[in-house]
Amino acid sequence: MTDWEHALIRHVGVGVKTSKALFEKIEVQDWDARPIPGKRTVGEVAVHLAVLLEADLLLAEGATAEAMQAFYATPVPRDQLNERINRAFTVYQEKVTTGFTTRPTYWGVTDSMNGWAIEAAVHLYHHRSQLYDYLNILGYELEISLFE
Amino acid sequence: MTDWEHALIRHVGVGVKTSKALFEKIEVQDWDARPIPGKRTVGEVAVHLAVLLEADLLLAEGATAEAMQAFYATPVPRDQLNERINRAFTVYQEKVTTGFTTRPTYWGVTDSMNGWAIEAAVHLYHHRSQLYDYLNILGYELEISLFE
Repeated sequence: MTDWEHALIRHVGVGVKTSKALFEKIEVQDWDARPIPGKRTVGEVAVHLAVLLEADLLLAEGATAEAMQAFYATPVPRDQLNERINRAFTVYQEKVTTGFTTRPTYWGVTDSMNGWAIEAAVHLYHHRSQLYDYLNILGYELEISLFE
Repeated sequence: MTDWEHALIRHVGVGVKTSKALFEKIEVQDWDARPIPGKRTVGEVAVHLAVLLEADLLLAEGATAEAMQAFYATPVPRDQLNERINRAFTVYQEKVTTGFTTRPTYWGVTDSMNGWAIEAAVHLYHHRSQLYDYLNILGYELEISLFE
């Protein structure tokens, strides 16, 4: 593993660990809450966070709109969020360290392999922040260090 | 510039460009609003976002608590946010491409140069997301693509 790969996986790992800490806090009655009108629900953000490391690298490899629709159609129940994000992180690590071939996305964006690896990382932190904000809006007392 | 550096700077560049698009939207009467009780105000998040690429690499180089306090003490008026984030991004790019020497932070965290470069990137996306959530909570109609 190169130093860059090691550094990236370290920080994605912090993002995954702290996302799981947030998942643990979600109370069942808040799963369908929509703290910001017009935006995703708590459950929708949590599921998106749990799968995105895997989803983004499928997009990077040129997955079709239909393939992505099928990917997202698999439901992720609340009690499987941890397992699901662990699996996505494993897939991410394998692809980042062994390499993968990029193709334009189905809407025409191109990026390098390293670009996609970084995109997935910042995307994870974007939605982790959203989930954190949601739980704060709902009045949760979160004593979680989001950064080291 | 290596492919990794290029990829990282591309995505940090997207984060900077979209942060500036959010800065432009902030209405003067909302600067001191605190959309989530107990958390930073709109203005505090915007200023933090504008300086963090520079701040994090000072921390990476072992800046003392006093030095950081002095760094953060410089006020950033609302009309200088764009200029300030541009400057921070320039400093970031220079350090990432020419390299810098890391030391333990004043609270004892150690990381590699590449680790810090990635940390600053995910940190930027974390607070960009927070500012985006804040403006949505306040009812702004934001037609901004946060990712490409």
